[in-house]
Amino acid sequence: MAKQTTIHDIAKALGINSSTVSRALNDHPRVSIKTKQKVFEMAKEMNYQPNVLAANLRTKRSNTLGIVVPHISRAFFSNVIAGVEEYAQQKGFNVIIAQSKDMLERERKSVQTLMNSRVDGILISPALGNEDAQHIQEVIDRKTPVFFFDRHYKNIETTRVLMDDQQISAALASNIIQQGAKRFLVLSGDLKTSIYQNRLQGINNMLADYELPEAMVQETNLTYESSSALIEQIVQEGSFEFDAVMAMNDMAALGAQEALKKAGFTIPDQVLISGFSNEMFSRFSSPPITTVDQNGDKLGYMAAKKIIDFIEDPDPIAVEETSTLKSELILRKSSQRYQ
Amino acid sequence: MAKQTTIHDIAKALGINSSTVSRALNDHPRVSIKTKQKVFEMAKEMNYQPNVLAANLRTKRSNTLGIVVPHISRAFFSNVIAGVEEYAQQKGFNVIIAQSKDMLERERKSVQTLMNSRVDGILISPALGNEDAQHIQEVIDRKTPVFFFDRHYKNIETTRVLMDDQQISAALASNIIQQGAKRFLVLSGDLKTSIYQNRLQGINNMLADYELPEAMVQETNLTYESSSALIEQIVQEGSFEFDAVMAMNDMAALGAQEALKKAGFTIPDQVLISGFSNEMFSRFSSPPITTVDQNGDKLGYMAAKKIIDFIEDPDPIAVEETSTLKSELILRKSSQRYQ
Repeated sequence: MAKQTTIHDIAKALGINSSTVSRALNDHPRVSIKTKQKVFEMAKEMNYQPNVLAANLRTKRSNTLGIVVPHISRAFFSNVIAGVEEYAQQKGFNVIIAQSKDMLERERKSVQTLMNSRVDGILISPALGNEDAQHIQEVIDRKTPVFFFDRHYKNIETTRVLMDDQQISAALASNIIQQGAKRFLVLSGDLKTSIYQNRLQGINNMLADYELPEAMVQETNLTYESSSALIEQIVQEGSFEFDAVMAMNDMAALGAQEALKKAGFTIPDQVLISGFSNEMFSRFSSPPITTVDQNGDKLGYMAAKKIIDFIEDPDPIAVEETSTLKSELILRKSSQRYQ
Repeated sequence: MAKQTTIHDIAKALGINSSTVSRALNDHPRVSIKTKQKVFEMAKEMNYQPNVLAANLRTKRSNTLGIVVPHISRAFFSNVIAGVEEYAQQKGFNVIIAQSKDMLERERKSVQTLMNSRVDGILISPALGNEDAQHIQEVIDRKTPVFFFDRHYKNIETTRVLMDDQQISAALASNIIQQGAKRFLVLSGDLKTSIYQNRLQGINNMLADYELPEAMVQETNLTYESSSALIEQIVQEGSFEFDAVMAMNDMAALGAQEALKKAGFTIPDQVLISGFSNEMFSRFSSPPITTVDQNGDKLGYMAAKKIIDFIEDPDPIAVEETSTLKSELILRKSSQRYQ
């Protein structure tokens, strides 16, 4: 029996991409009628038989999308989920969620559970400080798309929808410098993680632009408790010589603010404070805390659109794509001496 | 061929429950050795053959639990999920989550999606104000357990793990009355829902005990925005004659508090305020807001224990069981004139 004609043979014969051939055969709107005609004629000429098994597999979808988030209770991630659900609903997709609690072992199990649940694709924001992404590669190798949002594994080639962490952190640092701050303390998460690296880089770039010393950095788990305990300790040692505390989330910013108030510092007169992620409480604390709104719902919507469009019209050629979304500064009293 | 012996025949012959026979045959620790011996002897005597198909079905588990919550971002529900995950992890179960956003149609789809994902059981807190529970009954009829937590459908016979809404609301009202309040405004969710009915009942019972007038009730969707708009409107109409506002969640309490402060009222001197569910922000608002901690993690742990134990050792006799857990008053400045 002669070797069966594939879409790749048609593509080669016409000198166009296999993905274009695939789309043409599936009557995709992005392909011109002229191209479709050429492809159909060539397919007929070469006696092309669509792979029924593959077509069948393709339609055997569950119309379910899986999401793995580190913490479902965080404002940013629940906004992302809301955005994913909005697009998914428009397209008739259901969404199931698993959380990793930022632990690699739980992330692995979550991915496995979603695969056992026969999801058509997975959106994931990986656990912090981990580089071993074999469990992700295995899923991709089994032809189920895994796309990243907010955080990502560097060594996996796929679609990523990320935030502009470095740029927005630089803009925030610039604003705080203009309020008069010179000595920065940064409360960071695990610096093995790209989002924290990028935020710190943005801050230090801006400090360098203003010829100010590099920020002093403390890695913490970014909880209210650890952050307030850390500030308390620095104050007790008599080594609190900062006039700005930039925390990489709002819980840590609030913990720092409460500890500083307790130690007799006035905010923002003596110390300027900023957080990140715009948790609801940061608007109502005393003083309200300057933060960054990451537009999680828009990020979720975009990530859902990318993966659902891919599921509905898979590109046979491996793709790598990185999109970056803009965040927004939310300037409040904790960092504003002059308004 | 003679009719096969069933566990019900053995139970009848021994004058004990079928569930005890089932447990004895499965070497369950809750059954005494003496009973096991009796059951094994009778099983042998009656030529009992275990139903291999059923046993096979029983072991064909996915070891996955599904949860449906109205809103994953709410403190109470994320605490419940944390509690469920804690017990599930101990037992080697995975957890996947879907949210209904308090909409019946999304709840139906969520349940269907979890069933398609082949979960072994579903824990659900139903959408508000809905009484049509056919989608739940269908799952139970297909032998997949569905247990309720916090909220429930009244006409479904199953296991429910609920909170002491009426008792804790009465205790909170009592505390506020002792601070001097006489005219109560209650910001409630949809009063077709049992949890809100119960909370209102608790408040009104206590007001009656003190021979005070019934609370004025406003049904709202309990968001910050709707609550502050409502209070603003009542104030503008000149009809704000209350000295206590009890809101059925913390978002609504905060909205009321901010609107009252803006209108020139002092909290707690002129108006006492309380919320419900202990969101993180209620501790840091100005003044901090009195609330109820519902111990969501303990509720989640207990609900997970009940359903996983049932999955691992299904009781062949239909069960209905309601457990009620204790909440905790968190008294803060918004309701405390005298401390």
